[in-house]
Amino acid sequence: MPEFDNLPTYESVREAADLLHPVVVRTPLLESYALNEKLGARLFLKCETLQHTGSFKFRGAYNALARLTSAQQAAGVIAYSSGNHAQGVALAAKMLGIPATILMPEDSPKIKLANTRGYGATVITFNRYTEVREEIGEKIARAENLTLIKPYDNFFVISGQGTVGIEVAEQLSTHNIKADICVAPAGGGGLVAGTALALNELSKQTDIYTAEPEFFEDTSRSLKAGKRIANEGGHKSICDAIVTPIPGEMTFEINRSLLKGGLVVSDDETKAAVRAAFHYFKCVIEPGGAVALAALLTGKVDITGKTVVAIASGGNVDPDLYSDTLKERDQ
Amino acid sequence: MPEFDNLPTYESVREAADLLHPVVVRTPLLESYALNEKLGARLFLKCETLQHTGSFKFRGAYNALARLTSAQQAAGVIAYSSGNHAQGVALAAKMLGIPATILMPEDSPKIKLANTRGYGATVITFNRYTEVREEIGEKIARAENLTLIKPYDNFFVISGQGTVGIEVAEQLSTHNIKADICVAPAGGGGLVAGTALALNELSKQTDIYTAEPEFFEDTSRSLKAGKRIANEGGHKSICDAIVTPIPGEMTFEINRSLLKGGLVVSDDETKAAVRAAFHYFKCVIEPGGAVALAALLTGKVDITGKTVVAIASGGNVDPDLYSDTLKERDQ
Repeated sequence: MPEFDNLPTYESVREAADLLHPVVVRTPLLESYALNEKLGARLFLKCETLQHTGSFKFRGAYNALARLTSAQQAAGVIAYSSGNHAQGVALAAKMLGIPATILMPEDSPKIKLANTRGYGATVITFNRYTEVREEIGEKIARAENLTLIKPYDNFFVISGQGTVGIEVAEQLSTHNIKADICVAPAGGGGLVAGTALALNELSKQTDIYTAEPEFFEDTSRSLKAGKRIANEGGHKSICDAIVTPIPGEMTFEINRSLLKGGLVVSDDETKAAVRAAFHYFKCVIEPGGAVALAALLTGKVDITGKTVVAIASGGNVDPDLYSDTLKERDQ
Repeated sequence: MPEFDNLPTYESVREAADLLHPVVVRTPLLESYALNEKLGARLFLKCETLQHTGSFKFRGAYNALARLTSAQQAAGVIAYSSGNHAQGVALAAKMLGIPATILMPEDSPKIKLANTRGYGATVITFNRYTEVREEIGEKIARAENLTLIKPYDNFFVISGQGTVGIEVAEQLSTHNIKADICVAPAGGGGLVAGTALALNELSKQTDIYTAEPEFFEDTSRSLKAGKRIANEGGHKSICDAIVTPIPGEMTFEINRSLLKGGLVVSDDETKAAVRAAFHYFKCVIEPGGAVALAALLTGKVDITGKTVVAIASGGNVDPDLYSDTLKERDQ
């Protein structure tokens, strides 16, 4: 089992919140009277879809880039990402005047490739079925003296993502309530780890779960096993943002001690959640960003009579896929 | 020219803000770095799509219903609406325990009919091409002793809608800026009238415009003529929320003195704005709610180098129309 001298803590999340305050969107925590009535619960949606670059990833990226030394900032950064971390790093780098190189799968959603280039980053594509992004990334980083900004196994990235949890707790406190349950999508597990650090301090009573797509439930299975287990491979999912092969080392070390468990949803359940978000919240959520909502809407954990939070982690979806999803009907 | 003893003022808008504070969503004022760069301007989108019931109409409806006497509240209210005022009145009535009857065109978007019924209101449909909703509404109101809550020519409705303007000014002040231009969609003109009352006090330098669909530019033409002019009729628009026949009497009395002018957009320009809101803001906007954004994106007024605000007034759009709009491509 790996040991870490320096894991993120509530304090590092709070420091990230202070640093990020002037630059991030304090995204709304929405509820729908109609949906609440239907569910017999009070469901809040934390709309990180409305964050800069359309996902929570901007928080961790900016926090990590802002902490680099002047020399590191001048030399530049490199990141690998299916698209949301890419955009987060690209915009944060642009705002801080740092050159950025981003490694992205060649089959990333077109919108994510275009947006990342649009923020001025140099994009290098690779084949995610035959090449290993970590190897390519580390090779280029060494050759060009770039600082690698990992998408989740990074102290400042996890701390930055955790500011979502601080906001959730603060926003619920304006209603004088605390959440019974909070569910966050998990790829590498950075968002849920940071959120758990925040809620464990600010809202001890809240049970925190991950949500993952079927066949990519590595965090769920790892939590049950008490150790990191990789996905079996050979499957695809529409949830491009969160189809990581195995939980992060740092993130799992946090998640194993703070999470209640992992929830798993099918792609069809995710599509129904995308439609529900359109109907009840007028929010565009990408498939990978909708798995937490999907888990709650399909009762993967009992929410009757409870106050529950789903984090909608991103909204970068190609219009054709989104249109097709809307045109399908709930069974 | 009609005279009004009692027109809404900045003070009545401020009082509405105090009353509404615990019940409305303080909707986000979003900007997109990518869009700003493309436009060479700083464009903020006020997302009233995220308001309860999916449009700003909840503000005015709640403010009006909360001011009724106990006897009026017990007897019940009636409203006519193409759908957004309907939903606003229906939810506000439900929250305040007031029986509500709503007159809606039989060809209203299905989502608006279903939602209004879902909030517990009694819905009566009519044919908007052959029947006059004002006449039907007043007849039922008299017969059943219901208080008619007009969609815009009502002191408390206009005051409630104006709280959007207070929020815009306050949210911009956190960036230490004021808007050069603010554009609001106009049907009867309640939203823009209330917003103008707020901004005229809090941000004198802001030029305020309406946006309307082609063939339904009654406010634009009325502002030019200095008197209320009706649309010619015989046309249709996808902007169902704002195809009112003529400016309101009270609203026009305010708008004629506070607005800079009216902007007019085609349905195709509106659809392009719906797509832009999807792409840059991850916000679902209904066609009628997107005309202000459309007017700014198509340069109906020069925004170069300026700070501008578009109010996205509603998001209640049928999924098929929305999908079709996304699938079309910008020319």
